[in-house]
Amino acid sequence: MLTEAINQYRARVDNQLESYIDALEDIEPKLKAAMKHGALLGGKRIRPFLVYAIGDLLSVAPQKLDSAAAAIECIHAYSLIHDDLPAMDDDNLRRGQPTVHIAYDEATAILAGDALQTLAFEIISDPSNTLNPQQQIAMINALAKASGYNGMCGGQSMDLNATNQQIDYETLVKLHQLKTGALIRCAVELALIAADADDNTKQHLLTYAESVGLAFQVQDDVLDITASTEELGKPQGSDCEANKSTYPKLLGLSGAQDKAKALIEQALSALTNLPYNSQLIADFARYIITRRV
Amino acid sequence: MLTEAINQYRARVDNQLESYIDALEDIEPKLKAAMKHGALLGGKRIRPFLVYAIGDLLSVAPQKLDSAAAAIECIHAYSLIHDDLPAMDDDNLRRGQPTVHIAYDEATAILAGDALQTLAFEIISDPSNTLNPQQQIAMINALAKASGYNGMCGGQSMDLNATNQQIDYETLVKLHQLKTGALIRCAVELALIAADADDNTKQHLLTYAESVGLAFQVQDDVLDITASTEELGKPQGSDCEANKSTYPKLLGLSGAQDKAKALIEQALSALTNLPYNSQLIADFARYIITRRV
Repeated sequence: MLTEAINQYRARVDNQLESYIDALEDIEPKLKAAMKHGALLGGKRIRPFLVYAIGDLLSVAPQKLDSAAAAIECIHAYSLIHDDLPAMDDDNLRRGQPTVHIAYDEATAILAGDALQTLAFEIISDPSNTLNPQQQIAMINALAKASGYNGMCGGQSMDLNATNQQIDYETLVKLHQLKTGALIRCAVELALIAADADDNTKQHLLTYAESVGLAFQVQDDVLDITASTEELGKPQGSDCEANKSTYPKLLGLSGAQDKAKALIEQALSALTNLPYNSQLIADFARYIITRRV
Repeated sequence: MLTEAINQYRARVDNQLESYIDALEDIEPKLKAAMKHGALLGGKRIRPFLVYAIGDLLSVAPQKLDSAAAAIECIHAYSLIHDDLPAMDDDNLRRGQPTVHIAYDEATAILAGDALQTLAFEIISDPSNTLNPQQQIAMINALAKASGYNGMCGGQSMDLNATNQQIDYETLVKLHQLKTGALIRCAVELALIAADADDNTKQHLLTYAESVGLAFQVQDDVLDITASTEELGKPQGSDCEANKSTYPKLLGLSGAQDKAKALIEQALSALTNLPYNSQLIADFARYIITRRV
């Protein structure tokens, strides 16, 4: 059931993204192709999954979630394009494919990332979407907060500055709360906004989101050691190679695995406080720490 | 009167930008300092000027325009930071100061640009600002359209691809309508949204904006030839050096100067259709083609 839901929501958001990008005028075909390459490179689409799955839990029709799902994936895609640049993580491969600056060139990759960020805000603010203006504004504000200086951008900056440095556990947690946690949390927040959810629902589902977001990153660090280059679609051990601080480095491999499990227990426990059939998102939480890619 | 108004609105938007950036947490001091460097490097602030001056023409209080003025300058500042990068125009100086990737480093410049773009959308969507949600959404949509693939980003991409190539006059106009024109037009559009302006007012003020926007770019190209390095704050003749297509190259220097004058006549003529005291913005239009910096 989880696999079908993941595939279904992935296909749905991919369709959305493709049609948004295809609808752009053909003024700059190379830039458009680079945006498409970056946005449709595959991937788990876990942020759109959370938008749709949490929305479904709260009885929101998927049509009302499409713009949020596409927008948050645009932000994620833009961040990957920029993170892969030579001046940043300098990665040539992502998901087994050439990164955008390799497939095109560096200037095009910078602009494709910039334009995908803008597209996220254009999509949510589109007058034709089915959200009301209050919901649109709340979503834009949540997405901007999660992805800017106080969120993803700040986290990427911390990550770059922490490379080749010893950082402590609290700093590593803060770094990941910003770099990946904020946007995963935001996916749940966007669904809560679309549902006009009450405070109790918000509180427990945001706890779920925060725990899953951190567990996702811990598992990413674990996979960098335990998965093969083929499974990862990028060189195995690249974190270690880049001299990055990771959870296994600070907690040991089994310590990191235990931490991921404890976070998922926390996420599952938050769900028990709510009167919904949360099997799908509970399964998703378990999947986060058992996945191999 | 024009000079005082320019100085007054510049001080106003600089205060706004400074307080927005200062209000960010101190999680990443280097990134924050780089954002501030890029956003407060000086400059004419012509986009915020247009927001305030057109707003004033339509009796909108400046308090209702602050978020739009700050947001559009964040977008402009981010675009300059990214345009200056080695992979793009590779400029070390802007307004007589080191560019962001020189004062800091390339990764920080990429992230500072990214975070300034996000900040623009965060500022307009802030729940505490004095606009209503319909106005906020309309502004965000206008700003996203003007700055993304179909606007500024697409124009910068065209510009990079046109370097070392002969392009015709129509293509050069399209390039500049996107690269600089769209955001200047958007400044006027944001004021029109804040004013809930009628269609007739919109039509004539957008004609004004489009003419001024293009004249601004023609004059920029003219200044690249006629102004000194000291006046420009960057090397004189750098467009020519970079083998860029410019209006003087296609029309001759005096042909380009005539074109700028004709565009300003068009802008002034649009103003005569409206029942407002438009002396300030008429003076501003004339200033656009007489300025030396």
